[in-house]
Amino acid sequence: MATGIWLIGARGSVATTAVVGAAALKAGLAEPLGCVTELPELRSPALPGLADLVFGGHDIAGIPLAKKAEALVTAGVLPAGITAALGTEIAAAERELRPVPSAERQIDAARRIAADIEDFQRRHRLERVVVVNVSSTEPAAPPHPGHADLAALEESLASTDPVLPASSLNAYAAFTAGCPFVDFTPSTGARLPALAELAARADVPYAGNDGKTGETLVKSVLAPMFAMRHLRVRTWSGTNLLGGGDGANLADPAANAAKAGSKQRVLAETLGYQPQGSSHIEYVDDIGDFKTAWDLITFSGFLGTTMRMDFTWHGCDSALAAPLVLDLARLTAAAHAAGRSGPLGELAFFFKDPLGEVSHALPEQWAVLVRFVRGLAYV
Amino acid sequence: MATGIWLIGARGSVATTAVVGAAALKAGLAEPLGCVTELPELRSPALPGLADLVFGGHDIAGIPLAKKAEALVTAGVLPAGITAALGTEIAAAERELRPVPSAERQIDAARRIAADIEDFQRRHRLERVVVVNVSSTEPAAPPHPGHADLAALEESLASTDPVLPASSLNAYAAFTAGCPFVDFTPSTGARLPALAELAARADVPYAGNDGKTGETLVKSVLAPMFAMRHLRVRTWSGTNLLGGGDGANLADPAANAAKAGSKQRVLAETLGYQPQGSSHIEYVDDIGDFKTAWDLITFSGFLGTTMRMDFTWHGCDSALAAPLVLDLARLTAAAHAAGRSGPLGELAFFFKDPLGEVSHALPEQWAVLVRFVRGLAYV
Amino acid sequence: MATGIWLIGARGSVATTAVVGAAALKAGLAEPLGCVTELPELRSPALPGLADLVFGGHDIAGIPLAKKAEALVTAGVLPAGITAALGTEIAAAERELRPVPSAERQIDAARRIAADIEDFQRRHRLERVVVVNVSSTEPAAPPHPGHADLAALEESLASTDPVLPASSLNAYAAFTAGCPFVDFTPSTGARLPALAELAARADVPYAGNDGKTGETLVKSVLAPMFAMRHLRVRTWSGTNLLGGGDGANLADPAANAAKAGSKQRVLAETLGYQPQGSSHIEYVDDIGDFKTAWDLITFSGFLGTTMRMDFTWHGCDSALAAPLVLDLARLTAAAHAAGRSGPLGELAFFFKDPLGEVSHALPEQWAVLVRFVRGLAYV
Amino acid sequence: MATGIWLIGARGSVATTAVVGAAALKAGLAEPLGCVTELPELRSPALPGLADLVFGGHDIAGIPLAKKAEALVTAGVLPAGITAALGTEIAAAERELRPVPSAERQIDAARRIAADIEDFQRRHRLERVVVVNVSSTEPAAPPHPGHADLAALEESLASTDPVLPASSLNAYAAFTAGCPFVDFTPSTGARLPALAELAARADVPYAGNDGKTGETLVKSVLAPMFAMRHLRVRTWSGTNLLGGGDGANLADPAANAAKAGSKQRVLAETLGYQPQGSSHIEYVDDIGDFKTAWDLITFSGFLGTTMRMDFTWHGCDSALAAPLVLDLARLTAAAHAAGRSGPLGELAFFFKDPLGEVSHALPEQWAVLVRFVRGLAYV
Ligand SMILES: NC(=O)c1ccc[n+]([C@@H]2O[C@H](COP(=O)([O-])OP(=O)(O)OC[C@H]3O[C@@H](n4cnc5c(N)ncnc54)[C@H](O)[C@@H]3O)[C@@H](O)[C@H]2O)c1
Ligand SMILES: NC(=O)c1ccc[n+]([C@@H]2O[C@H](COP(=O)([O-])OP(=O)(O)OC[C@H]3O[C@@H](n4cnc5c(N)ncnc54)[C@H](O)[C@@H]3O)[C@@H](O)[C@H]2O)c1
Ligand SMILES: NC(=O)c1ccc[n+]([C@@H]2O[C@H](COP(=O)([O-])OP(=O)(O)OC[C@H]3O[C@@H](n4cnc5c(N)ncnc54)[C@H](O)[C@@H]3O)[C@@H](O)[C@H]2O)c1
Ligand SMILES: NC(=O)c1ccc[n+]([C@@H]2O[C@H](COP(=O)([O-])OP(=O)(O)OC[C@H]3O[C@@H](n4cnc5c(N)ncnc54)[C@H](O)[C@@H]3O)[C@@H](O)[C@H]2O)c1
Ligand code: NA
Ligand code: NA
Repeated sequence: MATGIWLIGARGSVATTAVVGAAALKAGLAEPLGCVTELPELRSPALPGLADLVFGGHDIAGIPLAKKAEALVTAGVLPAGITAALGTEIAAAERELRPVPSAERQIDAARRIAADIEDFQRRHRLERVVVVNVSSTEPAAPPHPGHADLAALEESLASTDPVLPASSLNAYAAFTAGCPFVDFTPSTGARLPALAELAARADVPYAGNDGKTGETLVKSVLAPMFAMRHLRVRTWSGTNLLGGGDGANLADPAANAAKAGSKQRVLAETLGYQPQGSSHIEYVDDIGDFKTAWDLITFSGFLGTTMRMDFTWHGCDSALAAPLVLDLARLTAAAHAAGRSGPLGELAFFFKDPLGEVSHALPEQWAVLVRFVRGLAYV
Repeated sequence: MATGIWLIGARGSVATTAVVGAAALKAGLAEPLGCVTELPELRSPALPGLADLVFGGHDIAGIPLAKKAEALVTAGVLPAGITAALGTEIAAAERELRPVPSAERQIDAARRIAADIEDFQRRHRLERVVVVNVSSTEPAAPPHPGHADLAALEESLASTDPVLPASSLNAYAAFTAGCPFVDFTPSTGARLPALAELAARADVPYAGNDGKTGETLVKSVLAPMFAMRHLRVRTWSGTNLLGGGDGANLADPAANAAKAGSKQRVLAETLGYQPQGSSHIEYVDDIGDFKTAWDLITFSGFLGTTMRMDFTWHGCDSALAAPLVLDLARLTAAAHAAGRSGPLGELAFFFKDPLGEVSHALPEQWAVLVRFVRGLAYV
Repeated sequence: MATGIWLIGARGSVATTAVVGAAALKAGLAEPLGCVTELPELRSPALPGLADLVFGGHDIAGIPLAKKAEALVTAGVLPAGITAALGTEIAAAERELRPVPSAERQIDAARRIAADIEDFQRRHRLERVVVVNVSSTEPAAPPHPGHADLAALEESLASTDPVLPASSLNAYAAFTAGCPFVDFTPSTGARLPALAELAARADVPYAGNDGKTGETLVKSVLAPMFAMRHLRVRTWSGTNLLGGGDGANLADPAANAAKAGSKQRVLAETLGYQPQGSSHIEYVDDIGDFKTAWDLITFSGFLGTTMRMDFTWHGCDSALAAPLVLDLARLTAAAHAAGRSGPLGELAFFFKDPLGEVSHALPEQWAVLVRFVRGLAYV
Repeated sequence: MATGIWLIGARGSVATTAVVGAAALKAGLAEPLGCVTELPELRSPALPGLADLVFGGHDIAGIPLAKKAEALVTAGVLPAGITAALGTEIAAAERELRPVPSAERQIDAARRIAADIEDFQRRHRLERVVVVNVSSTEPAAPPHPGHADLAALEESLASTDPVLPASSLNAYAAFTAGCPFVDFTPSTGARLPALAELAARADVPYAGNDGKTGETLVKSVLAPMFAMRHLRVRTWSGTNLLGGGDGANLADPAANAAKAGSKQRVLAETLGYQPQGSSHIEYVDDIGDFKTAWDLITFSGFLGTTMRMDFTWHGCDSALAAPLVLDLARLTAAAHAAGRSGPLGELAFFFKDPLGEVSHALPEQWAVLVRFVRGLAYV
């Protein structure tokens, strides 16, 4: 069951780590650490095999994949020697990358994006292609009447107005090409009524938003712990220091705001109230891909006694994100194969800001995910 | 449904905080923070009310409860002014405390312990009494042939040999008095084949061991997080700095060893393998009741990339433990009322070293606990 | 040698802690911890005795000192029982507090401020009065031609324009009353050419700015350590969580910016280059007077190997600041007595943003301070 | 001025990093970060140049230097590619390494050690050779009457008794060969009255003990900070997690005890009293050469208010130690050239447990060192 992964932002850190990593796993050079679909509880014949994934994608940047991979080796994200060992595979992926098509009218840009994807699918005789957005986080998109329903959207796209942010235009293109869409970023993506309508019409599923790889992951287990123990969280204040391409982009206050918001939501949802404090993101070029986050939590217990905990998280963002990209593509492909369409709330486990009215507590998200995968096997 | 709580170690920090705290809650002076049986998911008519609890107990020390409470105010464990506000209640509890009975033969000591409990129950017309061990952690008990079965045990107890450590003698006495037993300490308590036999014969339930209030609590949510994300924990190394009576006792390497062992077990159980590192306990008088723990965790992810997190936990041990003592007494009383006997594996949520073959992951323990409480309501 | 301390912001946390603390020391209720002028190396007959200090001051707020002191007890800044023990002394200080005089023209306001100070000095027959600014941090003052020289300043003050920020108007008033001035805040204070001129004319010394009590204190010893070991600091990034009155005020981005700037200056000065990273201040009401700061430092050593350290500082700002206020008043009074005038660079030890071209490394500042005090003794 | 460095433990991590690093600096492949003698304040014509150092040494292990260097590359201590670039230099050093000579009588072993050193000096026409002990930390040596004076020592060494631990035997051999001796380890080394006598007779200087590279370095600036601010340190408790060869050796409680002792001494010396708490060392194989230390400090300030700070230090021990080995050899060689003999207390800056009655505060040690180097230049 050859399955395509079409990456928006294909020359970025997450994308490159995913492409090189999948090749390394296929070549038996590494264990599938970080890939949750390789855990016994989630392994399933319903999922396309890791070895059956084929990569292509769009990027506005032109840096060769091999050069980007080399930079990731230097940064300690990819192991030394891997680019030499996987030169052929990297070259093969390089051939499937395309510049982002542009056009005066967004409807035409979308058609060309879809055409690139369809061409990719045809050439590789892929059963299906999952489009995954791992491009730079966008600032919040300005509202537009075309967002509200599909008819209005299609009419507006045919004008020369900018109607959709890039992430949503990609979702639109994916749906028109009959492809599932995964948004690993906090950008708008498929989260517009008009696009929900389109996904339903096209009978394709979609998932998102914003891969959960660090501080929020920890929050999604610690916050339920405080709740289960009836301890009242008073303050939860976080600082995230990060460099890399994503860090540089998040230094932009607009993009930053989107991210910081989705990082605190988990608290209100799992605790039932919003503690004081905020989540602060700071760009430090030198930190590179290894983010350091520090969180301080103060809480009250029996008779009001105040206590505290703090943690630091020193994680390699791309190494945490890339295997989840593979997981999400496999799961979404299987959901599509099983006839699922619309938002996949069951994949909340993977996201900081999951679609739908779902739990933000990791253990519950895990239980839902396990059931979801079991369900897929019996279609 | 007046229910007794008979505390072994009744003049200690945990016991005093529980007694004073229960009175404060009854008097409406505080919210029931830290009491998990007061959470919506666990509130149940099957449990005795917080206001229906009556306290008594044994201690080898003679410090007046009011004086101990004052010391806990100074230490910041109890709020200022509380001893004045609850003088009557503290005096009432004081009247129910007894010195630890002794005798040449352990069988006679056990009879006197049981007699004190029965007398307490009679005087207060209590429906039942739950015996809770919150006394100092013992060194590991030397093995004795009398531990293996009940007949052998009763024969040995009638000699002048020391057969049982204090915690187990208290469990023996509780069971002969028809009372459930909860061991909040890492001591042997009811964990001997002979005592299991006795509990079955007496038709009483028991629970334990070692209340989970700090570092291990955090481990029981973080370790599953790493497991669910397929991240391999390489090192988990912990340092616990604590003072107070319990700290002084744990400075004794023998008692210390018992505790440090039960603190790492959660890792092997939830991860499926034992990472490197150990859990180290150090007594620092000045730290008092507010323990500070630091844990370093290193882990590998995608393609072997090594990452790390550390946390510090600054918790008030007695404020974390005392509400759990109330919870455990209520739950065990309800289980007894519902006809349960033997080890209550369903209470694993509360313990570092739970009885039975049970999960060590907090979320699963929570789910089991919720089902358990629901079950009690429909007896 | 009775010496007055006239506090600008006399009802704030730092001021109240200083007033109550000085009374406690006089009454023998506490050791002079935190008072550096009580260390053997700095004790000197040239300094007015702790028991010879008399307090008065201005504040725009009207909260009674006793009530403020009570609030500081609740917050854990002052020890329980202290307000009862020192009721007389607190009442005495209360009688010396005045509302901030206002007038249409700043020259008149300054005269009334000076009059209040002179009146205080007369009534208590004080040898001298040191004016200490511990009022809320101001936003950076807009430039004004009157700042450049004294003649221009006096002319402008006589108009109805606002010329000086409050801190500088207080410095002006102090100097015209012949009093030394200490600025414990990052506000402009005496740092204007016109005021330097005035201090010289009035023959009075002044000191500042911004008391060094937490993160910057630690920086002033750690940064030299890296320098002395030829380790290159790459990133130094700090987060300060604080509540209290000062925290609320610093939540205002303008005031915040002033503070964050002076917090990083020490790095450039002691390292000789500016590492990446910034110092971030966040207001968290619940944190109260106990600030928590976290700093991450990454550095390169032999052959470029990258290493890191981080620290958390959990300090009570007012308890750290108040004894320094006493120290500064004593030292500045002694300098005045010894005939010193103009900026006291030798007091850099106390400040985040010291006056003059001085070292920012704490050990060198200490050495300078010791020499300074020795010098005073031989006048 | 070609100067030899004879390394005891020449195939260990510190030694190999020093040898490879010196070659890298000579080849212009790296800046001299971590080398304090390359700071402007300490650069001096009195010191042999970095490029004039020639390496040789003893080791009981036989691992080829190139292989050890490769392992250090893998561990991230040495930069990738360095072993290829410096193959010739590494081979040259390899040719100067010798197995540790043994003999039935220690006097004969010492003669052979000295002969190896003299032979090294002759072959390379070295002006002088500094012997540096970077071998594994020894357990505390049992006392022996031969330690007390030189005559007794020489008599005992001629018997077949074991009289001196290896570190001291090496110091003995160095002195008899007319060479200065530096002990970078906590072992006994030259710290015996008999050896002091010998050094005086041979007119050679010596330095030690135990390179200060991590937690103790930080202590030597933080402890004076608390002292200078009159803040009373109540608890200082440290945990050191380390792997590598040194870590494995320190897992031995005897070696460990020596190290942990010298780590707390700095506190008593700089504070004037011994706070509570201890320094704990734990071996964690996986941690490798990158040690992680965590220290908690609690302290009291004004009116007794208790505050706290903690820090984590994540340092590469060999990268911190190796440049100091080069510094120490250069400084000791220059001292020898200047006619100094006996213990060099002026080098306390480099050591956890410095010789002589010297300050343990880093800034004072720095000032002494700067004066010392200036003094050497004017001989
Ligand atoms: N790494 C993580 O842990 C993590 C977690 C959650 C979300 N994310 C999100 O994943 C995204 C990628 O992160 P990264 O670290 O790989 O960032 P990156 O900067 O390395 O890569 C982003 C890539 O997107 C490309 N790009 C930008 N705009 C584009 C467009 N309109 N069309 C196509 N390509 C475009 C850029 O040229 C770049 O190559 C970010 O949005 C980030 O916020 C990452
Ligand atoms: N506080 C927590 O978070 C926590 C968590 C898990 C377990 N525990 C355990 O709870 C127990 C109590 O802790 P604490 O802080 O109250 O200690 P504590 O030292 O304050 O109190 C122990 C009391 O037990 C009494 N005692 C000792 N031996 C006795 C005996 N044979 N019979 C009767 N009384 C006896 C002592 O006199 C003392 O009053 C300890 O074993 C501790 O390890 C506490
Ligand atoms: N506490 C520390 O560690 C520390 C360190 C460095 C600097 N400081 C500075 O010290 C100052 C005082 O801190 P705090 O915690 O006591 O703050 P606070 O908010 O408790 O007190 C400030 C007081 O100043 C008064 N005030 C405001 N404007 C005034 C004016 N124009 N004239 C007279 N009074 C005025 C306020 O009414 C208040 O009572 C702040 O500027 C702070 O930044 C404090
Ligand atoms: N790295 C640091 O930051 C640091 C700081 C202070 C002290 N030290 C000390 O430096 C020493 C070396 O540390 P390392 O990390 O290189 O250790 P290592 O284990 O890598 O190297 C020690 C070497 O000494 C050799 N050796 C053992 N006994 C010997 C003997 N009798 N004669 C000759 N060689 C012998 C071993 O074979 C090994 O090659 C240790 O004693 C350590 O405690 C290191
Ligand atoms: Na931390
Ligand atoms: Na920390």
